[in-house]
Amino acid sequence: MRPATDALSATFFALADPTRRAILHRLSRGAATVKEISAPFEMSGPAVSKHLRVLERAGLIQRGREAQWRPRTLNPAPIRDVAEWAGEFKRFWDASYARLDNYLEVLKKEEKKHGKRNG
Amino acid sequence: MRPATDALSATFFALADPTRRAILHRLSRGAATVKEISAPFEMSGPAVSKHLRVLERAGLIQRGREAQWRPRTLNPAPIRDVAEWAGEFKRFWDASYARLDNYLEVLKKEEKKHGKRNG
Repeated sequence: MRPATDALSATFFALADPTRRAILHRLSRGAATVKEISAPFEMSGPAVSKHLRVLERAGLIQRGREAQWRPRTLNPAPIRDVAEWAGEFKRFWDASYARLDNYLEVLKKEEKKHGKRNG
Repeated sequence: MRPATDALSATFFALADPTRRAILHRLSRGAATVKEISAPFEMSGPAVSKHLRVLERAGLIQRGREAQWRPRTLNPAPIRDVAEWAGEFKRFWDASYARLDNYLEVLKKEEKKHGKRNG
């Protein structure tokens, strides 16, 4: 199985690592340089850079324009796509959706009972 | 970089493929046998089985007990975890959260202006 290359798959792949998810949490508090991003991790510079590249390829982070510091910033759009994808399954765990499902079920039964009135 | 083995990472990894996501959508409509799951894909049986194993390892699907058919069913719990993770970033794209942020900002300023009254 080769890794998939579509945007959503690249996002999911980038999120499949606790260090990369921690980096995104750090950037949710504001832009940060590679040095600042690396500080909390017991990890070599090149290892952190590799994680940053995966996040960048998925469009989850971007580099600032300041030539010398190049602070990284969070780009939330791909995370919104993930939230939307997962949200499609919301009715499986959300009680208010479950109630809506029950209600639609009742409507369907009512319709059957009374037959098609507009058919 | 070795693949991470924590539960959330395994879930994200399993979701990093359009075929596997399509299988979950199929199972959201009800339990299905491997044959039924495979039908829409131009893919060998073993390739589909491989995808099913990745989904199963992440706890996203489970096998029914019926010995002969062993229909697969969706287990939504890991998707809920993904939704929760992504939801932590909601304020970056949700307008209602942006309004809440603004409101908290106003409260903070008011507090500064009036000084600590209960301090």
